[in-house]
Amino acid sequence: MIKLKRALISVSDKTGIVDFAAALERHGCEIISTEGTKKVLEEAGIAVTDISNVTGNPEAFGGRMKTISFQIESALLFDREKDAIEASELGIKPIDMVVCNLYPFAKVRAQGADLPVLIENIDIGGPTMLRAAAKNYKYVATVVDPEDYPALLQELAEQEGTLSEATRFSLMRKAFNHTADYDALIATTMDEQAGELSVRFAFDQAKKLRYGENAHQEGYFLRQRGVADSYFDIKVLHGKALSYNNMFDMYGAIESIRDMRQHACAVIKHANPCGLSVGDDQRSVLEYAWAGDPVSAFGSVIAFNTTVGRGTVEFFCLNAEDRSKRKFIEIIVAPAFTDDALEYLYLHKNLRVVEYDPHRLTPSKDMKFLHNTLLYQNSDLEIKGKVEYVTRIKPDIDAELLDFGLKIVRQLKSNAICAVRKLDNGYCQLLGMGCGQPNRLNSTELTIKRCRENLKNEFDGRGDIKTHIKKKMGELILVSDAFFPFPDNIDIAHKAGIMTIVQPGGSMRDKSVIDKADELEIGMMFTGMRHFKH
Amino acid sequence: MIKLKRALISVSDKTGIVDFAAALERHGCEIISTEGTKKVLEEAGIAVTDISNVTGNPEAFGGRMKTISFQIESALLFDREKDAIEASELGIKPIDMVVCNLYPFAKVRAQGADLPVLIENIDIGGPTMLRAAAKNYKYVATVVDPEDYPALLQELAEQEGTLSEATRFSLMRKAFNHTADYDALIATTMDEQAGELSVRFAFDQAKKLRYGENAHQEGYFLRQRGVADSYFDIKVLHGKALSYNNMFDMYGAIESIRDMRQHACAVIKHANPCGLSVGDDQRSVLEYAWAGDPVSAFGSVIAFNTTVGRGTVEFFCLNAEDRSKRKFIEIIVAPAFTDDALEYLYLHKNLRVVEYDPHRLTPSKDMKFLHNTLLYQNSDLEIKGKVEYVTRIKPDIDAELLDFGLKIVRQLKSNAICAVRKLDNGYCQLLGMGCGQPNRLNSTELTIKRCRENLKNEFDGRGDIKTHIKKKMGELILVSDAFFPFPDNIDIAHKAGIMTIVQPGGSMRDKSVIDKADELEIGMMFTGMRHFKH
Repeated sequence: MIKLKRALISVSDKTGIVDFAAALERHGCEIISTEGTKKVLEEAGIAVTDISNVTGNPEAFGGRMKTISFQIESALLFDREKDAIEASELGIKPIDMVVCNLYPFAKVRAQGADLPVLIENIDIGGPTMLRAAAKNYKYVATVVDPEDYPALLQELAEQEGTLSEATRFSLMRKAFNHTADYDALIATTMDEQAGELSVRFAFDQAKKLRYGENAHQEGYFLRQRGVADSYFDIKVLHGKALSYNNMFDMYGAIESIRDMRQHACAVIKHANPCGLSVGDDQRSVLEYAWAGDPVSAFGSVIAFNTTVGRGTVEFFCLNAEDRSKRKFIEIIVAPAFTDDALEYLYLHKNLRVVEYDPHRLTPSKDMKFLHNTLLYQNSDLEIKGKVEYVTRIKPDIDAELLDFGLKIVRQLKSNAICAVRKLDNGYCQLLGMGCGQPNRLNSTELTIKRCRENLKNEFDGRGDIKTHIKKKMGELILVSDAFFPFPDNIDIAHKAGIMTIVQPGGSMRDKSVIDKADELEIGMMFTGMRHFKH
Repeated sequence: MIKLKRALISVSDKTGIVDFAAALERHGCEIISTEGTKKVLEEAGIAVTDISNVTGNPEAFGGRMKTISFQIESALLFDREKDAIEASELGIKPIDMVVCNLYPFAKVRAQGADLPVLIENIDIGGPTMLRAAAKNYKYVATVVDPEDYPALLQELAEQEGTLSEATRFSLMRKAFNHTADYDALIATTMDEQAGELSVRFAFDQAKKLRYGENAHQEGYFLRQRGVADSYFDIKVLHGKALSYNNMFDMYGAIESIRDMRQHACAVIKHANPCGLSVGDDQRSVLEYAWAGDPVSAFGSVIAFNTTVGRGTVEFFCLNAEDRSKRKFIEIIVAPAFTDDALEYLYLHKNLRVVEYDPHRLTPSKDMKFLHNTLLYQNSDLEIKGKVEYVTRIKPDIDAELLDFGLKIVRQLKSNAICAVRKLDNGYCQLLGMGCGQPNRLNSTELTIKRCRENLKNEFDGRGDIKTHIKKKMGELILVSDAFFPFPDNIDIAHKAGIMTIVQPGGSMRDKSVIDKADELEIGMMFTGMRHFKH
């Protein structure tokens, strides 16, 4: 335990500093300060030793030299045991605490400052003091964050003006993380000034997951330092902790509905939407989404973009006496839930209920790690480029439905195809999809198969089922994430009764694909924008 | 242009320092040094000013205080124009260059040093000098890397003892990147000492790609700083620059064969292997891999684990007069190529030929970015856990084939199924796969469909084709990346003639799956290890 006798305070952000310094003074601690800080403290009636009295030097060169000196850094760095005699011979008196936050480089950078201003806002003395004090954490406390003041004052009060070694160690970690972040931003900014891209990340607040993607892999979830906005901040309201795969699926779920207008609901398996609907009523969009793949929907992640109400979640029949009627899902995620919806969801012990803030999850860059390298790109946030009908038949594709279909296919793993329709009541529904295939033909076939099964399920028994399916297939639009390399997909679509196709175009063989569509009287739109996603 | 008159040299890594200092001396530059460096330079006959003569202070506290002083940092920091008079009044003479590398924190950390040793190896004076000099880059050169000495000496020689501002700016960027890396490692290490995981990355050497996954996304490829081993170091021997998607597919390709024994060849589409074979002869493994999905193989990435020879690549018929016989692929990647193989491959103008060093691409952590958060896990490097036959029938599964099938299914996107066989000549071949599906049933069906088509292709016309297919299906093993949730997959496999199934097990309904297999006389192995991959 080291009794706090002298503290050096030199802060750029003066939040809370008067109260903190006043409290230190009450503990009998001498306060040493630099010009700006000194003025603020003295105006509040706190006695302050001018740092020049300690260093023996003036504040020089427009403030570039204030603290750096043999006297200050010695006072922070010397070993209180081994070096005690040497310090006394050199007239060095220990400083037991540094309170310092750095010139606001991040702030001026965010304001778009030019190079001279950026350079002037690189703090030299501050990091030197912080790093010296942190290195000597066994004797010195390093305070970089005004948010730490209250807890430190409490500890000082409880321990008669001392701080524990554990606290000093923790302050040291914070200080080195702070200087690391500070220089990381300077380095990145200076590279940027030179027209070079460099990327630095820091993540902490690690949560150990039960395991990674599989039980034999260790897994963690970490929050990026220094960002306001993070997926890390989602709230688990109910159920056991989320797993690695839950996190990833849920990410896909939120991405699937984040920019849908109206009520939207997505059913997610392995980050791919296998059911999705938008429309006027929340319960109905859930039902339409579920119907998109009622087999895969079991054990899925279900996402909403609006506050979830009781009427919606009763769809899951969680208290059905006939257990086979209960619809088991892994996770339900939404911006909010009504109290009575939560009460109902809590009937299911293992169901994870998760809240996210849709206004805070702004898409960041999209990245992949491959063996110590980074693939780094802008997220795919657009929908379509130059839209044109390329076939003789120019169907009048509903604008909402087109938007809906493109947003879904953008979210599906490539090669991806989806079939979407607009119902008479105005709802849009995903009726089938195929994804993750080495061959586009597979995806088209998977999509058609799923649509046919769903259309069979909804057939009401009146009339001929084949006629029903054919008619309904004709009302769909089939959307592809990339061009069709050959006309074979058009053939398959035609055989299934599909009459409208949307694809980006751009193949060497576009002409033969268009010719085939014309031959089969299919209407086809080119959107001019591919949506590969791997 | 600033004429170099005084340089401060204080290096921990003394590589090349004598030659560099001697050259500075020849340019008429005064050299100031700290104890260790001074000794080395003086032994080489270089005149050195002791730093204590400049600071007026002794080296104190076991070396903790050597350079930090009002005198040194002022000499580095003062503005040579605005502050000239003040400097002269204070007796501060400019220092025009700092040559400094820091205490070897990374090295002692790698040696497993304990906390006191780690702490002692945190450099305080070094970063202070570097950062002060870098801030004042308009007048001061900051040298942190011995590898820069030759180029700097050349520039000094060419420019009469001066360095350009561009050089000083570039040295400044290097210095801040260096101090950022230095404090990043300290922060991570101290967090680790506290039992907290934190993760910091820095990437640079950015290569701008033509675009990202799609044309409307900007894409970059960056190298992680401070690692020896990087996927970034692959060599493109021929063809246009690699795209974002090429990079990712190629990664999947290399991962698919990296730990195969014997010659191996993989055919990759969207990072999933759709063809793969291992065996004694390279040309044969290519043929068997290609036959796994001869349609998707067009436009694929093909990877080998051994030096590729001419006989192998002639399979692509790149100079066939009948153009339809030419097999177009996007990329061929291998540890090496013979000269005559390259000569042949270069016939195809657009084919990318890429070399990788299999000994350098050691798997790092596996990571995903989700909205400013990091999912972070150990890579999936294992194959199987506790292996047991769970059915009445206990087929004698070939150990090599089992290993082969598990390595493939591990690399396929979930839900994944693959069918593999061992041919009479000892080759292992992937005959069909299904991946990326929301429903395991889809993947099983896709696998069976592909197998049936391939078996049709290889049918030689003798006997009955149905009997042939059934018989060959019976010789396959069907491998699943995760447990079967219901017995339905077993039914489907049985109908297709499959007699052997490998899966991890672990479902609540394992018993009903085993019962179904027993009922259908299928032999089933549990491996005890799931291989989800998303």
